[in-house]
Amino acid sequence: MRIDVYPTAGSAVGADFASWAVAAIDVLRATSTMVTALAHGAVDILPVATPAEARTLSRGWPAASYVLGGERGALALPGFHLGNSPREYTPVQVAGRRVVMTTTNGTQALLAAQGAASLTAACFLNGRAVTRDLLRQGRDVAIICAGTHGQFDLVDAVCAGLIVDSLAGPQVPTEINDLGVAARDLYLGYRGRLAELMQQSRHGQRLLALGFADDLVYCAQEDALPLVPHWEAGRLVVSPS
Amino acid sequence: MRIDVYPTAGSAVGADFASWAVAAIDVLRATSTMVTALAHGAVDILPVATPAEARTLSRGWPAASYVLGGERGALALPGFHLGNSPREYTPVQVAGRRVVMTTTNGTQALLAAQGAASLTAACFLNGRAVTRDLLRQGRDVAIICAGTHGQFDLVDAVCAGLIVDSLAGPQVPTEINDLGVAARDLYLGYRGRLAELMQQSRHGQRLLALGFADDLVYCAQEDALPLVPHWEAGRLVVSPS
Repeated sequence: MRIDVYPTAGSAVGADFASWAVAAIDVLRATSTMVTALAHGAVDILPVATPAEARTLSRGWPAASYVLGGERGALALPGFHLGNSPREYTPVQVAGRRVVMTTTNGTQALLAAQGAASLTAACFLNGRAVTRDLLRQGRDVAIICAGTHGQFDLVDAVCAGLIVDSLAGPQVPTEINDLGVAARDLYLGYRGRLAELMQQSRHGQRLLALGFADDLVYCAQEDALPLVPHWEAGRLVVSPS
Repeated sequence: MRIDVYPTAGSAVGADFASWAVAAIDVLRATSTMVTALAHGAVDILPVATPAEARTLSRGWPAASYVLGGERGALALPGFHLGNSPREYTPVQVAGRRVVMTTTNGTQALLAAQGAASLTAACFLNGRAVTRDLLRQGRDVAIICAGTHGQFDLVDAVCAGLIVDSLAGPQVPTEINDLGVAARDLYLGYRGRLAELMQQSRHGQRLLALGFADDLVYCAQEDALPLVPHWEAGRLVVSPS
């Protein structure tokens, strides 16, 4: 098994993932929010590149059938129902509804890997569930960290490291790229200290400054929502397990 | 003091380094080789982008006044005097001579930061000497890891981490980007195990397979050559200290 970790959504653009199982990670907060919405009964998640695209797409849909969610600069978008805080995506808000989402980094990471053999959204909430699914598939694995504004994001890398560490047991021979080795080392160093990790990262610091401290605590919960979203025809749905 | 670490030469292209002190790192092997050549008496190092440029530039120079060095795919170039193994750059080969060098990754990292307030070449051999010089300058610091073929390189990142760790003592308030935090964590994990580090990296493994095991041992020597090259008008010279 090969395991390649990509530092940013941009670094994965143009790669050929046709034979790869891909996990896209944006712990703070897009993939944590997507996993939460699906756990709370959302029908599916439709990630789109821009707020305008979200508005255009949903025009004419029955009002009760969907919510628009997402952010730019970590803040909610005008006319959208929800921002990018996973704690907003309660069952009352999302159960039985489609969630159209646009986020700065996480959406781009998913869209970069649309052509993959399989594609999922991963975060600390579902990291080990994703790992089990990747092992079941038996394919080479690419892990795309969304990054923050085109730069390496420490929190995403540590979450990638959790997956690398869980995949690369002694029973599975693996060839891991340098960022995968580094991510695993980082995960082993921050394991059990994820709250501290969040505070080390610039993006975590920014969310703290904006008043989203509770989101950091929420997103740091390992294996709280052990479900595996799957990409199907442009949307994320929950895999039957 | 701000400290920003860049994962690859390409990721630093287009950044404005006019007010920054920049260290370019390509441990395996360009910057290790450049530092070695200067320690062994080379007059200066002229990094150029392509083998053709090296040949054109040196046409008409007195034969005893220069050597052409470098690699593509870790292997020596036709018509060049030396490859990219630091152990080839002995005093007999380079003392009193200009070294024109072209390498796949390291040269590109230096050329990406030509406009910096100051620019040096760093590796394990001179990491702490570079740190002392950066502290003396008192500027914001950018550390450009050359990377390998546009990808994150574990060995370069750990060397960057040595510099971050040495810079960011309790007496100097620092704002470190996420890759800088990760690089420091990685260095603290691999400190004292640099030979093992080399073998974890894909580039190190490739050099081992090509028979360059001695280069890995050589390049892993911390502080063996405590000199600081400085970029001046397109070339690296040794700073008077």
